[in-house]
Amino acid sequence: MAVEKTMEKIVALSKNRGFIFQGSEIYDGLANTWDYGPLGVELKNNVKRLWWKKFIQENPYNVGLDTAILMNPRVWVASGHVEKFSDPKTDCRHCKARHRADKLIEEWNRAHSIDMKVDGMSNEELTRYIEEHDIRCPNCGKKDFTPVKNFNLMFKTYMGVTEDSKDEIYLRPETAQGIFVNFKNVQRATRRKLPFGIGQIGKSFRNEVTPGNFTFRTREFEQMELEFFCEPGKDMEWFEYWKEFCRNWLLSLNLREENIRMRDHSKEELSHYSKATTDIEYKFPFGWGELWGIANRTDYDLKQHMEHSKEDLSYFDPTTNEKYVPYCIEPSVGVDRVVLAFLCDAYDEEELEDGDVRTVLRFHPALAPVKIAVLPLSKKLGEYAFEIYKELIKYYNCEYDDTGSIGKRYRRQDEIGTPYCVTFDFDSVEDKQVTIRERDSMKQVRIPVAELKDYFSDKFDLT
Amino acid sequence: MAVEKTMEKIVALSKNRGFIFQGSEIYDGLANTWDYGPLGVELKNNVKRLWWKKFIQENPYNVGLDTAILMNPRVWVASGHVEKFSDPKTDCRHCKARHRADKLIEEWNRAHSIDMKVDGMSNEELTRYIEEHDIRCPNCGKKDFTPVKNFNLMFKTYMGVTEDSKDEIYLRPETAQGIFVNFKNVQRATRRKLPFGIGQIGKSFRNEVTPGNFTFRTREFEQMELEFFCEPGKDMEWFEYWKEFCRNWLLSLNLREENIRMRDHSKEELSHYSKATTDIEYKFPFGWGELWGIANRTDYDLKQHMEHSKEDLSYFDPTTNEKYVPYCIEPSVGVDRVVLAFLCDAYDEEELEDGDVRTVLRFHPALAPVKIAVLPLSKKLGEYAFEIYKELIKYYNCEYDDTGSIGKRYRRQDEIGTPYCVTFDFDSVEDKQVTIRERDSMKQVRIPVAELKDYFSDKFDLT
Repeated sequence: MAVEKTMEKIVALSKNRGFIFQGSEIYDGLANTWDYGPLGVELKNNVKRLWWKKFIQENPYNVGLDTAILMNPRVWVASGHVEKFSDPKTDCRHCKARHRADKLIEEWNRAHSIDMKVDGMSNEELTRYIEEHDIRCPNCGKKDFTPVKNFNLMFKTYMGVTEDSKDEIYLRPETAQGIFVNFKNVQRATRRKLPFGIGQIGKSFRNEVTPGNFTFRTREFEQMELEFFCEPGKDMEWFEYWKEFCRNWLLSLNLREENIRMRDHSKEELSHYSKATTDIEYKFPFGWGELWGIANRTDYDLKQHMEHSKEDLSYFDPTTNEKYVPYCIEPSVGVDRVVLAFLCDAYDEEELEDGDVRTVLRFHPALAPVKIAVLPLSKKLGEYAFEIYKELIKYYNCEYDDTGSIGKRYRRQDEIGTPYCVTFDFDSVEDKQVTIRERDSMKQVRIPVAELKDYFSDKFDLT
Repeated sequence: MAVEKTMEKIVALSKNRGFIFQGSEIYDGLANTWDYGPLGVELKNNVKRLWWKKFIQENPYNVGLDTAILMNPRVWVASGHVEKFSDPKTDCRHCKARHRADKLIEEWNRAHSIDMKVDGMSNEELTRYIEEHDIRCPNCGKKDFTPVKNFNLMFKTYMGVTEDSKDEIYLRPETAQGIFVNFKNVQRATRRKLPFGIGQIGKSFRNEVTPGNFTFRTREFEQMELEFFCEPGKDMEWFEYWKEFCRNWLLSLNLREENIRMRDHSKEELSHYSKATTDIEYKFPFGWGELWGIANRTDYDLKQHMEHSKEDLSYFDPTTNEKYVPYCIEPSVGVDRVVLAFLCDAYDEEELEDGDVRTVLRFHPALAPVKIAVLPLSKKLGEYAFEIYKELIKYYNCEYDDTGSIGKRYRRQDEIGTPYCVTFDFDSVEDKQVTIRERDSMKQVRIPVAELKDYFSDKFDLT
């Protein structure tokens, strides 16, 4: 039986069980902001921890960094964001709805089975296309749009109390530039030789006109970015290396191979600084969406910062005695997006022998927010079971649940993806053994309480 | 020999070794922003991870949360931040320097040995005091100040592309309100009974007039906040409990007892919502400074949000059949601040037997950014030593260093607080043993390579 995975089901489960809540919900929310609940924050932290372990700690090439969200505005002039980081926008004069002009045309084209590239069209061309094809506002149905205009996607704010334009700064739209401006500092402090990478995890902000699809596209989001610096000429080799590396990381965490594809950017689609870009896409319930962008940014960023800051960001190669500006490969992934992919991928409904259907999140044990649930068969056994719980929480994130029938409690744990339930029953008092029930197979084994810690010791690692 | 710990030394070491860099440094920085380098991010992550483990995972009462930085602006009306979260400010008309009026007076009083409470003075009183006492601008020496005025400390930004005031939102000035607005969602999803706590770690922003003292007071900063909800009447008991709990956590991570003190807020100093507040202060090189604020916030926040959102945030107690609004105890600590305290506390200069002085960061092993350094005695041994390094990085953050004399390499590791160095020498090839050198005692033991993993297995835990 094929399971119908819908966003509705995933959004509902997320809210009910405490993965993801609407932001500021009691105040009717704030457009497309989301809060991670008790289970969501554990899932997200696991994703971040596992990325950090694989990309930074375990990787002999790479080191970590954590730079400020607020940066000197000259950074964004140098990076090109002040000039170029914008969306073409048009407003409906009738209902005041705001649209991304390119998306408006793309949707209209799709509905009319027209296969045409919108990328690269000028604002005048976009405006004319909308007029000439009688495209209507998806919101109110009228056709009365303002001319297409670029709107910068950076959030502005003001530092130092007054709103003088000289104090105007931006919330960073990507974490990458924090790495580029620290290239020299990190290289000097760590005495690294090329190739080496600098990675960081942190929040970024983009004033998107049309965010949507739950946590897939949000104005506030978290990124995990690696900037990997190498010798020019070896860049395409490393580009291939990191593409495979990222894909393998997703597969090692049990993301299904059939739900992943690699999509190379066409020449028209490539950013101005990029020599090659590949997206790892995931098949969400709403369609294929970008998960991870791996880009060959060449020496663009370091050269831009050299020009604008007048600092020498070139590298002296002690083996060849040459001096050059390193090339850079950037694998960049959105935390919220990859969390959503893991959530969608894990979602399953299974028909059981007795005809019942159970909902189960089949997370990789390393990702599961709760590792072990401790369940006394009866509240009378709480005293003993709670001792086991208190011992296990020293090592793992655990839940204690003593309410409802044991069957119901198993279902609750299935629904949040807990890999193991430990049940303490009346025999346990005498024989000092407990029953361990595994989530996917639902198989049960009985082991001594004294062996619990050892039993679980290798169960939650990423191998 | 008493070590002279100065901020200059700590700032210099932080920069040279990659703990903390000036933000946007190649663009001459951005007022008081800081970037955590490869060692700093590991130290900071260790602090956050250890807090989370002790306050959330291991604590049967508490669960975690991770809410958005951008919230509905009505949240800040309800919380009182729009109306009351401001500093009294005055500008020097001559040199345009901006000052906090209360701090200006406090400093002048201190210089003139006047012991007087400035808290609670109105803006008119502050203005008059500055005039009557001929207080001069610390920057230019003139006395020509604008009248004292309140300036709100929240960073403003605009969502949805245009700068309409209706789209005006704030960067959160504290993470706490994200918890209060989710109180009901979390309680419902986790089916918790009182008492229980909700904790989160995240960035906050305050447009301070006078930030300073390195990372002690910054406009962008990270918080670890717990909101612990309990039955009214039991609040002072829990207030005492959390004060001790926080203090013990600091001590368990080896923060020196003589550098910590508890300071109860006086009645005049208490925030309008608070029934009692105690600060845990740390003796920084620049003087005593607040590290952790533990406040009894009563039912203020939940009641404010009930009034403004019209949602029922009261709690039904199933044991007493009573309905009431919970009281809340808030232990709130700044991550950057507590990281700075650990850094200052760890700093030491030790005179050795041969008269040399070594700089050593005596971090608790759980906090140390690098746990183990693997050092081949000669580059010729690199092949073997690197294998050991590659095995150990699966479990711990390690460094590999093959450059310079072994003595110099020990000093480098001392200076970044690495608890253990593993040296691979020429004998190691034959006897498959390595030398482990401990940071503080500088004692060395020789153990088989095969036993390394076991040797370190319990060395970096917080017990």
